[in-house]
Amino acid sequence: MWPDRRLIELLGVEHPLVLAPMAGFVTAELAASVCNAGGLGSIGCATMQPQSAIEAIEKLRSLTSKPFNVNFFCHIPAQANFRREQAWLDQLADYYRELGLDLPSPPPRIDLPPFGDAMCTVVERARPDVVSFHFGLPEPSLLARVKAVGCRVMSSATTVEEALWLEAHGADVIIAQGNEAGGHRGMFMVSEVASQPGSLALIPQVVDAVGVPVIAAGGIADGRAIAAVFALGAAGAQIGTAYLLCPEAATPPLHRDALRQSHADATVVTNVFSGRPARALVNRMTREIGPISAETPEFPLPMAALVGLRAKAEQQGSTDFTPLWAGQAAPLAREMPGEAVTRALVEGALSQFRRLSG
Amino acid sequence: MWPDRRLIELLGVEHPLVLAPMAGFVTAELAASVCNAGGLGSIGCATMQPQSAIEAIEKLRSLTSKPFNVNFFCHIPAQANFRREQAWLDQLADYYRELGLDLPSPPPRIDLPPFGDAMCTVVERARPDVVSFHFGLPEPSLLARVKAVGCRVMSSATTVEEALWLEAHGADVIIAQGNEAGGHRGMFMVSEVASQPGSLALIPQVVDAVGVPVIAAGGIADGRAIAAVFALGAAGAQIGTAYLLCPEAATPPLHRDALRQSHADATVVTNVFSGRPARALVNRMTREIGPISAETPEFPLPMAALVGLRAKAEQQGSTDFTPLWAGQAAPLAREMPGEAVTRALVEGALSQFRRLSG
Repeated sequence: MWPDRRLIELLGVEHPLVLAPMAGFVTAELAASVCNAGGLGSIGCATMQPQSAIEAIEKLRSLTSKPFNVNFFCHIPAQANFRREQAWLDQLADYYRELGLDLPSPPPRIDLPPFGDAMCTVVERARPDVVSFHFGLPEPSLLARVKAVGCRVMSSATTVEEALWLEAHGADVIIAQGNEAGGHRGMFMVSEVASQPGSLALIPQVVDAVGVPVIAAGGIADGRAIAAVFALGAAGAQIGTAYLLCPEAATPPLHRDALRQSHADATVVTNVFSGRPARALVNRMTREIGPISAETPEFPLPMAALVGLRAKAEQQGSTDFTPLWAGQAAPLAREMPGEAVTRALVEGALSQFRRLSG
Repeated sequence: MWPDRRLIELLGVEHPLVLAPMAGFVTAELAASVCNAGGLGSIGCATMQPQSAIEAIEKLRSLTSKPFNVNFFCHIPAQANFRREQAWLDQLADYYRELGLDLPSPPPRIDLPPFGDAMCTVVERARPDVVSFHFGLPEPSLLARVKAVGCRVMSSATTVEEALWLEAHGADVIIAQGNEAGGHRGMFMVSEVASQPGSLALIPQVVDAVGVPVIAAGGIADGRAIAAVFALGAAGAQIGTAYLLCPEAATPPLHRDALRQSHADATVVTNVFSGRPARALVNRMTREIGPISAETPEFPLPMAALVGLRAKAEQQGSTDFTPLWAGQAAPLAREMPGEAVTRALVEGALSQFRRLSG
């Protein structure tokens, strides 16, 4: 069956496939569907208040008895910088005018605290089997609390240097996030988007550098790519975009339509939506302001200035200001329930393993 | 052995591995070493005069009786644009001063004609088994002459759209060039570097779109990646950077040193050396002028303005102005003769196929 069983044993899953947490897009139902098909379902709690995280975890637990993963962000909190936030808003002024909206004043802010004491307490009580982090790891005392209650810890690396740091600081599993991946890049030691390596180059170099199991992420949407990353030395695959068209996903209809029309070179890594590099389908924002702008406020402040624009545009059926998160394998996403997608991924990978052995 | 034998049969090789032509870096000796180990050796004639191409092909034929590939460029010739060329030179003025060099006047030019009648006559006489093109295909009458003498024709696609165009216009094999690849990107229908897909996403989407065999290129430097691209549906792998440290390669010593110190995120796609996007190790030019500049003259004119700078800097042991072509898997390149590298690649791939079958 699977040529590498380390993750199966470490995480207690039947298949070494992980649903990417995709905050705001993964529902408890989608996560449960992956768990119930033998994979590791994940929910993204990064944008939730602690009480909502408790409820999301409880709901997932009511839908599956299998292990699952809960994901948090470990970003450095944004520093208020009124001048920068006002300048960003001013850059959007023509769009506000075009849509007949008043420019907000002062610039709107949103607060997105990184994983901290309150959320750590949620984890200590809920004790999910696996906790994954994006943008590094929490401070040592918080990480120690997560590990003390028995959670396996995973985090994303976009370079070999980041993988070595994560291993040295306590990650049990490294998620090697290739440049193909949709959504936010986990970059936390490097900032240069142009030099981010693709999965085919990154995975074997991370595998050679670390001793812990490596999960490949980025560009994986069918059994062929799963088999490929095992050939590269990965012990598992994390898959996101391939689940965005599942009926259980919270993907909005306009986003689904955009995904259905996507192609392999329809995405860019852009910081114009959140202030951090993230892969999304090309749209008016990425074309006219991005893909990379040196003027964005710190993560996640650019989002606040877009809320009004985006809502008005979406009412009119436009995704001009919507972050249409997607990876480069988006065209391979299938419109099937999460359990069926998972089973197809497993069967696709296993049939490739058989084919390759001749 | 190999899970896909289409290329073995089509090209008459023992192993479906192609040495990337790497004009200026591949010698007849290196190409022959790959041929003699059962792969498809290639020589890059794009920068040669017809007489030099004849001699290079004759030399290769004296070193091997196996099939080989000869590569040419099909770019649109640069239009003279004095103002743009002068502006480019002016951008380099501080560097000239720093190195104690006079700024050339008028801006120096170099002529790099695309594949045309004279080179087509060389091909008709030499009749290599395989001819590959970069930047599209030559005009139909030239392509017909190449095919009329029995050459198999290959060309590179960086998107699904380009792959479909190449198949429709007569390519017998598509080289799917992932974003990881070193050197010039084959882009001929698209110009946006930021949306170029990585191999893991590109290869299966190209394989699904075309009927001809697909060779994967980009990020492949050991048997793991070769096995991976076969899992993705490729019928072969083209490998470049992994051969740059071979003793038979013409890689200059400073370039070799830079490759030895490289890492997975040490490269960028840049147009500052040639006017076309190409992957190279980050250096002073890519940092200070690039990686992408909107001001470069057309391909290959920026190179002319760099000749003097580069020569002087290299005399002083500096690669500040040298295009250090390299793919993202450069750290996996091994310092062994070409035949040994090829055998290691074959054995590495075959052992992965066995491992994956459990």
